[in-house]
Amino acid sequence: MKTPTFVLAPDSFKESMTAKEVCIAMEQGIRKVYPDAQYIHVPMADGGEGTVQSLVDATGGKLYEKEVTGPLGNTVTAYYGILGDGKTAAIEMASASGIHLVSKETKNPMITTTYGTGELIRECLDKGIKKIIVGIGGSATNDGGAGMAEALGVRFLDDAGHPIPRGGGNLDKLARIDITELDPRLQEVQLIVACDVDNPLYGERGASHVFGPQKGATPEMVQQLDRNLTHYANIAKEQLHKDVAHVPGAGGAGGLGAGLLLFTQSTLQRGIEIVIEYTGLKDKLAQADYCFTGEGGIDFQTKFGKTPFGVAKTAKEVDKKVIAIAGYVGEGIDSLYEIGIDAVFGIVPGASDIEQLLQDGPRNVERTCENIARLLQLK
Amino acid sequence: MKTPTFVLAPDSFKESMTAKEVCIAMEQGIRKVYPDAQYIHVPMADGGEGTVQSLVDATGGKLYEKEVTGPLGNTVTAYYGILGDGKTAAIEMASASGIHLVSKETKNPMITTTYGTGELIRECLDKGIKKIIVGIGGSATNDGGAGMAEALGVRFLDDAGHPIPRGGGNLDKLARIDITELDPRLQEVQLIVACDVDNPLYGERGASHVFGPQKGATPEMVQQLDRNLTHYANIAKEQLHKDVAHVPGAGGAGGLGAGLLLFTQSTLQRGIEIVIEYTGLKDKLAQADYCFTGEGGIDFQTKFGKTPFGVAKTAKEVDKKVIAIAGYVGEGIDSLYEIGIDAVFGIVPGASDIEQLLQDGPRNVERTCENIARLLQLK
Repeated sequence: MKTPTFVLAPDSFKESMTAKEVCIAMEQGIRKVYPDAQYIHVPMADGGEGTVQSLVDATGGKLYEKEVTGPLGNTVTAYYGILGDGKTAAIEMASASGIHLVSKETKNPMITTTYGTGELIRECLDKGIKKIIVGIGGSATNDGGAGMAEALGVRFLDDAGHPIPRGGGNLDKLARIDITELDPRLQEVQLIVACDVDNPLYGERGASHVFGPQKGATPEMVQQLDRNLTHYANIAKEQLHKDVAHVPGAGGAGGLGAGLLLFTQSTLQRGIEIVIEYTGLKDKLAQADYCFTGEGGIDFQTKFGKTPFGVAKTAKEVDKKVIAIAGYVGEGIDSLYEIGIDAVFGIVPGASDIEQLLQDGPRNVERTCENIARLLQLK
Repeated sequence: MKTPTFVLAPDSFKESMTAKEVCIAMEQGIRKVYPDAQYIHVPMADGGEGTVQSLVDATGGKLYEKEVTGPLGNTVTAYYGILGDGKTAAIEMASASGIHLVSKETKNPMITTTYGTGELIRECLDKGIKKIIVGIGGSATNDGGAGMAEALGVRFLDDAGHPIPRGGGNLDKLARIDITELDPRLQEVQLIVACDVDNPLYGERGASHVFGPQKGATPEMVQQLDRNLTHYANIAKEQLHKDVAHVPGAGGAGGLGAGLLLFTQSTLQRGIEIVIEYTGLKDKLAQADYCFTGEGGIDFQTKFGKTPFGVAKTAKEVDKKVIAIAGYVGEGIDSLYEIGIDAVFGIVPGASDIEQLLQDGPRNVERTCENIARLLQLK
């Protein structure tokens, strides 16, 4: 065989390694067997946590920090990335408005706001960005994206013409949506929203019913929040002539999906597909002999849009072999063979607690990949 | 590739699976990928615990139980095997006289005896066996094999002509060794002693100093036991005209190595070599395309005579590929590649406690071997 080319396209191993660190460990292992091979690192993500980091790493972009308004109104330090092309930004709503920014005691979807997410978008506009990838997983909010819109100039007014307070619990006071001050630059900016849920804005499958409880909503709050989002959608339909409530994904991130559709030039797309596109994965795979992927945990759920699934699907389009590794190999991996993952290996060396394993991630990835490469070399 | 042949030659995974059970799980995994392949099961062992079981399983022999005298004089149920040829038996001294048969409180190498091991040998003689493989690891004793010899007719007498009590602590009373009643059938029986230590009978590297403490000897007992074995060897040399004290391995199992050399037609050999010979491993490997081996734990120590080492060495003599799996992959496995193990994989699926892993052994072996086979099939 000629000197092979390996595409290394793992997700991050949560709490252990970023996707880039996994790439490095993979290469270190394989390189012991194939010292002269080509290694193409494509740190991946699926639109969830780590997506900005991976897109920045995969494209040679840069990560920035920005102080914004957190979900409870306090200041938080969020981050965003500008990809290697200099024109595309990537943000994660969770970085500004995420559930990890509230505590068990303070989480309250009646008052949490996506305002900080709007500030991140505005920051991108200020930098002249023309395309923004927005990951919307992990929110603490249920405000229909009203906070986000407010940060971009939209005014949400009560029937006396006064701004209503932020938070999904106050949307029942909404009488008028004033978009005259909406940042005009948004007309020229495309938002690609990474959204892996297909829930509508309201109703039984809507944001409040499905995701409200995990954000701290009591059954009474769920009822109130759902009524409020319905009211919000009705006002928007009446005054903006946009009916987005039933678009699949409108209910993502407490209705931020709907808010983005209402006030920006947005399209919703599966996170993994966006990452595959913006990392140029397919072109890179076309040059490869083998593709290595992986994720902290791999099981039957992997085939529902997670990174190894997307990588395998793309690899099969260009007829490449795919080997996956994972810190945890769960139930139902048989079903992954059908979607194009040729083999799956756990990296864990023996009985061990999770803390030790998180710490030893790189060496376990390295050892496992070295041995996979040793098998490949047996050919 | 033509339909491949797989030789499956693992050791047992201690406390989880016998070697035979590992073979079965390996085949179940590989068979999913190669349904029409040939599978040759060679359950292995290295002379230690599980050797009788593996030799019986590998040759289609049978396991027997026998009530014998335990190390403390109580009755214990020991086992032995008769191999598929019907002429060769296998015993483990530990099954009759092992450290697991005494408690932390009762272990006492001054009084423990190998008498039960002698009874097992006598049982083999009664069955007409012509060759006995004797594993001598894991002993509770330090009696120089005097107990074993007594069970076979030897009389150990004090200067008044009375039998001395059993146990290494009483050998100082020995004045005369009477072999007139030694079972004459022993002249026609070959004993192959699986012994992986090269310690002499006495002295600083002798049985008492090196292994006495782990059998419960205090520093004073160690001194006494060492003096006693020296005395025992001197008497034997004088009266039997045999000088075995410095034969490497004479100090194995509290001097049982020396006792076997003194009173039976014994040769000492490395355990793994015996198992390789009696399982016919090399001939089976000659027919194979791939060899799978494995052990509960694999690390740098594996190359000091453990099963995957012996299997790999044998496989390389007939130029076959060797893949090893383990429940625990430890430090220094790089050094195993040099001795002929082509790749090593852990079977553990993720963070887990040892009890769960012991229980899940078969499914973890199966999954891992299936995925190794999937990689092999990529060729």
